[in-house]
Amino acid sequence: MGAAANRSGIVTLLSDFGLRDSYVGQMKGVILGLFPAAQIVDLTHEVAPQDVAEGAFQLATAWRSFPAGTVHVAVVDPGVGTARRAIAFLHEGHYFVLPDNGLASFVLEARVPERAVLLERRAARLAHVSSTFHGRDVFSPAGAQLARGIALEDLGSTIDPMSLIRLSVPIVASENGVVRGPIVSIDHFGSCRTFIRPDDLPAPADRVVVRCGRAVIRGIVRTYADVSEGHTLALFGSYGGLEIAVRAGSAAKAWELERGMTVEVTGPDESK
Amino acid sequence: MGAAANRSGIVTLLSDFGLRDSYVGQMKGVILGLFPAAQIVDLTHEVAPQDVAEGAFQLATAWRSFPAGTVHVAVVDPGVGTARRAIAFLHEGHYFVLPDNGLASFVLEARVPERAVLLERRAARLAHVSSTFHGRDVFSPAGAQLARGIALEDLGSTIDPMSLIRLSVPIVASENGVVRGPIVSIDHFGSCRTFIRPDDLPAPADRVVVRCGRAVIRGIVRTYADVSEGHTLALFGSYGGLEIAVRAGSAAKAWELERGMTVEVTGPDESK
Amino acid sequence: MGAAANRSGIVTLLSDFGLRDSYVGQMKGVILGLFPAAQIVDLTHEVAPQDVAEGAFQLATAWRSFPAGTVHVAVVDPGVGTARRAIAFLHEGHYFVLPDNGLASFVLEARVPERAVLLERRAARLAHVSSTFHGRDVFSPAGAQLARGIALEDLGSTIDPMSLIRLSVPIVASENGVVRGPIVSIDHFGSCRTFIRPDDLPAPADRVVVRCGRAVIRGIVRTYADVSEGHTLALFGSYGGLEIAVRAGSAAKAWELERGMTVEVTGPDESK
Repeated sequence: MGAAANRSGIVTLLSDFGLRDSYVGQMKGVILGLFPAAQIVDLTHEVAPQDVAEGAFQLATAWRSFPAGTVHVAVVDPGVGTARRAIAFLHEGHYFVLPDNGLASFVLEARVPERAVLLERRAARLAHVSSTFHGRDVFSPAGAQLARGIALEDLGSTIDPMSLIRLSVPIVASENGVVRGPIVSIDHFGSCRTFIRPDDLPAPADRVVVRCGRAVIRGIVRTYADVSEGHTLALFGSYGGLEIAVRAGSAAKAWELERGMTVEVTGPDESK
Repeated sequence: MGAAANRSGIVTLLSDFGLRDSYVGQMKGVILGLFPAAQIVDLTHEVAPQDVAEGAFQLATAWRSFPAGTVHVAVVDPGVGTARRAIAFLHEGHYFVLPDNGLASFVLEARVPERAVLLERRAARLAHVSSTFHGRDVFSPAGAQLARGIALEDLGSTIDPMSLIRLSVPIVASENGVVRGPIVSIDHFGSCRTFIRPDDLPAPADRVVVRCGRAVIRGIVRTYADVSEGHTLALFGSYGGLEIAVRAGSAAKAWELERGMTVEVTGPDESK
Repeated sequence: MGAAANRSGIVTLLSDFGLRDSYVGQMKGVILGLFPAAQIVDLTHEVAPQDVAEGAFQLATAWRSFPAGTVHVAVVDPGVGTARRAIAFLHEGHYFVLPDNGLASFVLEARVPERAVLLERRAARLAHVSSTFHGRDVFSPAGAQLARGIALEDLGSTIDPMSLIRLSVPIVASENGVVRGPIVSIDHFGSCRTFIRPDDLPAPADRVVVRCGRAVIRGIVRTYADVSEGHTLALFGSYGGLEIAVRAGSAAKAWELERGMTVEVTGPDESK
C-alpha cells in the first residue's frame, strides 16, 4: 500500500481550475481510487485560465522541494480536445504528467528529459474519457499509476524527449553588458519575478543597477531586512531568480509593474 | 489503522466556509482526532454563503469520481441551531453526512437513498456541541466515524429515506418540443451549466438550437476545439449536463449570463 | 513510519502566503521529504500579508480542534532575514513552530509555554537556507522533525519560555461595569469577532447591551436561529468569544464595522 521503489508516493497537482468548483476534488477522487495511499499536494490551482507560461513558472519554482520519485501532474490545457499530445516524462528523478504545450519549459530550461511517453494505454486513462476534462480522465489516472510504481513505458509508447514543445519566450538575454529578462510572474505579495540568475549579472551584485518601468534600484541586496519598510529592493528570490520587491509592500502596485515588462540589469557605468 | 471493509478511508468536505478562516482546518482536526488514517479531500469551500442549491450542484458533480465507501461531508447550513435535521445516508455505496435541507437533491435526483439516520447518538457528535458550528461538532465526527467503519445505525435512529427534503427547483422541463432548464452553476471559467442531458434533447445534438439570453448557438459540439478561439459553443460538460461556453473566454461575461437564467433547446424547425 | 509516541503525526500550516503561488506546496514538499507519513492540514494561508495579529487570532481559534501531539507551523514573518528568533515550543501537549513575533499571543493568552527552543541546529533547517523563505527552509523542516518524534531540545538550545514576544494589544478591558474589546477578526461571513468571554460580562447575557459603531444589540443570544433573517445578533462564537453577526447576512457590511473597532458591553442600566 505504501510507495513503490523509486517513488515517493507523492502526487502534486497544478492547474488553472480554481477552487470554486469541484474539479480539483474530482481529480483527487480518481487518484485515490487507483492509489489509496497517495500523498496528494496542491501546488496551486490559481493559475490564470489557460495561462501556460504562468503555470510553467509556478511548476518550475516548486518541484525541487519534493523528494525524488514524486509525480507532478500539471494541467493548464487550452488544447484539450485537439491533437495536442498528453505525455509523461522522467527528469532528474521526478515524473511529470501534462499536456505537451510548453508547461514543462521552465522545469527543463535548456535540458532534455531522460525518457518520455505518450499517455495512450488503457492504464493511463479512465474507461470513459470525456472530451473536456482530461485533468480528471487522463492526467490523474496516469499520475496515480506512476505514483504507485508502474513503469513510464506502461503508459504508452516512447517519444523523442527532444520533441517536447517549448515556450518560445526568450527568458534572459545579454547584449553589450546589459542583461534583460521579462517579469515572468507577480506573486501574492506583489513581488515581480524574473529568471535572471546570479551568473547572468554583468557586474558584482552590489554594484549593478536594476530597472523596470519607472523603478530604478541600485545594487542587489540579500534580504528584505536590508532596506527600510516601504523601500524598493532587488534580490534573488527563494526560487533562484532576480525579483523586484517592496519591503512590507507591493512592488507591482507601487511601480505599476506588470507581467511581461522587461527588467534590465546594467553595470555601474551604465547607470550614470 | 487503515480503512474498514466497505469503506475507502476517504472523507470529502464541501462547505461555504471559505478558506480565509480556520473553520475547515478545525473540521479536519476533529476528523483526524477520531480517524488518524483518514484521507481528507476538499471538494470546495467556496460555495456562496448559505447557497444550498450551489452546494447541491457542486456535490453532484463530484461524488462519482470517488471510490465506493467514501464519506461525503457537506455543510451549507443556514438552519444551524434550528430544528432542521442532521442526517447521514447511504446511496449507491457512498455515505453522505449533511443537514437535511436539500443539499443532497442533485446527488439523488429522482432516486431515494437506501438507508438514512439522524445524527443523534454520542458517537455522532463531540462531547460539547456549539450552537453555531455543527460542521465541526456534529458533521465532522459523524463523517469520521463512518469512514473508520462504524455502521450507519450506530449514529442514530433510522428515518424514512423518502422523507429527505428536496429542493423544489424544476431542473429540466420539456413542452411542445422545447426543453428548458436553468443555469444551475457558473464555473471558474465562466461556463454556464445546466442539468439538461443528452436524453432530453428534442432532436439530434448537431441540429438543435440552444438559446440563453442573447446567445443563440446552432448545434451542440463535442469539445472546445470544435470552434475557434473566442467563439461560443454548447457542449455536454464533464459532469454530463449541457453547458454554454466560450473557447478561451468566459460565456458568462461575453453574454451577461447569470445563474437562474433559462437555457432553451429547440429542434431545427424552431430556429427559423 | 507512523506517528511517534506523544505525536499525532499531524502538521498544521498557517501563513500569509496565499494560494496563488507554490509557496505552500514547497513547504509541504519539504515536510514530506523528511516525514513521508505526515498528515498535513492547512489552517489558512489567507492571512493578510504580514498581519501578525490576524494570524495569531486564526491560530488561536484552531489548535484545540486537533489531537495532542500535533505540530502547528505558523509563518507570518515580516521580520524574515532580521535577527528575530525562529522558535518552537510545547504548550498543553501541542507543538508550535514559528517566528518569535507575537504570532502565539492568542494561543498562550496569559499562560507561558512549558519549554521553548531556538531553531538553530542542523536538524531544524535545510542544508541551504534562503534569506527570504524561512517558511520552507527553517519552519517546515523543524515542524516535520517534531512531527516524526524528535525531541524539542534536538532542534536547538532552550530559551526562557517567559521571553516570548507578545502582542501588546489589550484584548479585553473592564472598567466601571463597561467591558471593551476590539474586533480582532472579521470572518468570511462578515461576523465581527472579539475575545470577550462569558466570564467578562458585567450582567447576565440576556440583559447586557452590546454596541459597536452604530450597532446596538440588546441581549446575547445562543444561536443564529434566535433572530429572524437579516437581523443583527450578538452571540458567543464557536471559538468562545463574543461576536456580532447578521443572520443570513454580513454584520461587517450592514454596519460598516472594521477590525480594530471597539465592541462595548454594558449592563442593562447603562442602556437606558
